[in-house]
Amino acid sequence: MNTSTQALQHTLLDQICEAWLKLQQHQPLVHIMTNAVASNYVANVVLAANASPAMIDNPFEAESFAKIAAAINLNLGTPTTEQVQAMHIAAETAHRLKKPWVLDPVGYGTVLHWRSNTVDQLLNSHPTILRGNASEIGALAGKRIESKGVDSTINSADVYLQAQSLLAHCDCVAISGESDYIISRDYPVIQVSGGSYLQPRVTATGCALGALIAAYSAVSSPAIAALAAHVHFAIAGQRAFERAPQLGRFNVAFLDEVHQLNTESIRQYANFQILPGAV
Amino acid sequence: MNTSTQALQHTLLDQICEAWLKLQQHQPLVHIMTNAVASNYVANVVLAANASPAMIDNPFEAESFAKIAAAINLNLGTPTTEQVQAMHIAAETAHRLKKPWVLDPVGYGTVLHWRSNTVDQLLNSHPTILRGNASEIGALAGKRIESKGVDSTINSADVYLQAQSLLAHCDCVAISGESDYIISRDYPVIQVSGGSYLQPRVTATGCALGALIAAYSAVSSPAIAALAAHVHFAIAGQRAFERAPQLGRFNVAFLDEVHQLNTESIRQYANFQILPGAV
Amino acid sequence: MNTSTQALQHTLLDQICEAWLKLQQHQPLVHIMTNAVASNYVANVVLAANASPAMIDNPFEAESFAKIAAAINLNLGTPTTEQVQAMHIAAETAHRLKKPWVLDPVGYGTVLHWRSNTVDQLLNSHPTILRGNASEIGALAGKRIESKGVDSTINSADVYLQAQSLLAHCDCVAISGESDYIISRDYPVIQVSGGSYLQPRVTATGCALGALIAAYSAVSSPAIAALAAHVHFAIAGQRAFERAPQLGRFNVAFLDEVHQLNTESIRQYANFQILPGAV
Repeated sequence: MNTSTQALQHTLLDQICEAWLKLQQHQPLVHIMTNAVASNYVANVVLAANASPAMIDNPFEAESFAKIAAAINLNLGTPTTEQVQAMHIAAETAHRLKKPWVLDPVGYGTVLHWRSNTVDQLLNSHPTILRGNASEIGALAGKRIESKGVDSTINSADVYLQAQSLLAHCDCVAISGESDYIISRDYPVIQVSGGSYLQPRVTATGCALGALIAAYSAVSSPAIAALAAHVHFAIAGQRAFERAPQLGRFNVAFLDEVHQLNTESIRQYANFQILPGAV
Repeated sequence: MNTSTQALQHTLLDQICEAWLKLQQHQPLVHIMTNAVASNYVANVVLAANASPAMIDNPFEAESFAKIAAAINLNLGTPTTEQVQAMHIAAETAHRLKKPWVLDPVGYGTVLHWRSNTVDQLLNSHPTILRGNASEIGALAGKRIESKGVDSTINSADVYLQAQSLLAHCDCVAISGESDYIISRDYPVIQVSGGSYLQPRVTATGCALGALIAAYSAVSSPAIAALAAHVHFAIAGQRAFERAPQLGRFNVAFLDEVHQLNTESIRQYANFQILPGAV
Repeated sequence: MNTSTQALQHTLLDQICEAWLKLQQHQPLVHIMTNAVASNYVANVVLAANASPAMIDNPFEAESFAKIAAAINLNLGTPTTEQVQAMHIAAETAHRLKKPWVLDPVGYGTVLHWRSNTVDQLLNSHPTILRGNASEIGALAGKRIESKGVDSTINSADVYLQAQSLLAHCDCVAISGESDYIISRDYPVIQVSGGSYLQPRVTATGCALGALIAAYSAVSSPAIAALAAHVHFAIAGQRAFERAPQLGRFNVAFLDEVHQLNTESIRQYANFQILPGAV
């Protein structure tokens, strides 16, 4: 690690701490449209981080609520006709008002054409941050993916170089997987490590991460928001696993840890690397 | 506390115990239409209290199910067109059959006009109990509220005097917050204390409380139903926090405690006051 | 227990172990349309068993997803117009492609006519396995049932003989209750015991069992799939209760145990009987 990389790493760590402090201070209102599987868990994770989630996903209230929200998270897990209408309205509102919003294209590519077309249209409203697993982001970046439902079948490390092309449509791309990658124009690619192998065995963790990114995007720049949320999740996952390595108890402990994070634990446990080749 | 206040307090405590015993005995069927975030949690809380929840929220079955239910709970958290149709049908059915029903006007006032108009119409079917946080009840009572999503931004104590005007539309108003207030024509205002500061950090606790009030309303008078449900919640929250002061574990312990309540713990932990000035 | 019954019991135990091993190995993609109350819990249970759930319940993607799924689970708990359209498409696709699918007719009979008619139509696509509680299966088999919401009011033992008539519409009928019954043309009626009295106090356990049966049906014959899933659930419920006899903690422990099952614990704890009179 050369000196400038080391300096950047320190700067980023400071910025993560600052983002977390601002999140606690402002408790931003996050307008969330997410899937039926995820909604309870997502709300609980966002509340645990001390932000303020509100799931408003009907087309009749989408515009007025998007206007008062500090950030927006749209997740395509189980779309309905009304919810998709609401998403278009919220995305356009966010774009018009330069409000940060996070797009989570669950199941993109694969055989799920309706949502994939919806995602393609939503990209016209220029999401601030595009977050997904490697299959979804890979498919968006034009890679042919073999599909297995909505979970990723390819490795995040195989996708992050191609994902740079997606910066034409957004300010930041965040890929979750065994390692996470944060891609932006502001920094070299940042790889986030940590978490637990149990996390993919709990449903909707990716969806909750997307909502947490949105919460952070209300108080920091896109790349720092994605980085801070990923580090928050990775630390909580790692510490929860240390205490509770059984699936059910892990998930309970994970909420404890999302809630108990502080700048001390961020400084002690944050595990991210700047990828030099990817500058 | 003068003698008659003391006597009333004892009477109310007896009635809470009786309501709880009847709930265990009858395990009433509660017809619930609630939001996507809350539905799993609400069902689990109602089951934990030994009542029998059923979420039937389509317009094609709303009338027939409302007819066989012992009580109904309508919650405006994430309305859809079909669900709102079903709510109107259920409310009218309940009104016609003089069946107790609880209206939870989530997000009322604020910028959420569709649901607010829906709530205004539902009031024509005279809900038995209107329950909400201070922002919602305050807005319904005509107070100008600054909105922050669906969580309350004002204090419950600032609202309960104005809330008396809402008794024109219902038999009882229940306001939840740091302290809870039960307002009816039958008793002076009753203030319920207890719970835990972690409760607002768990999503849908207010929604679950609304469903629990509906369950109790099947076996007792409106004001006693609201009081018993609030005391049930407050004791469970307080005891859960004593055992498990971390967010994830608190929520698990809360379900344990909702389930384990009995008349002995009601008598030991119930914490409510009659507000003399508010008679 | 005569010799041939004993031999069959041993064979079945081997087949349960084999089904579990195949489930771990193939982690089949299960296409699930379930109710709003259940979706998070169902996904977590299926993930805990190491299968791969995906909730795709819109009519625009139902056919393409049914084609790539290994098995399908349709659950009528909280139908919407769009979801019912999607169910018809998925059922027809499964039938055409001879793909295993599980029908869970939540609330069948009773006063819930819309869903009951939907179930009657779905039976034309010949579900591989029909699973429900005794009230639902009894009503399907023509028994008059007194209704109390969506929970069963009659005993599973009173229904399993009549349920044999339902084999005209499916390959296997699975009835859950205090005891569970697996009815097929391949074996005598099998009774599964175990679980915990707390299970009916956790919402959506039956719904999760239906999805788990679907997962097993991707890797084994209908009767073995139903048997293996019921035994999996019964062991997890029993062991969870031994460790955690309080409602909230029981539910957490149950997920631990669903995840930690292995062939050793299957052989040690599986508790099922072949009912000789029912051959």
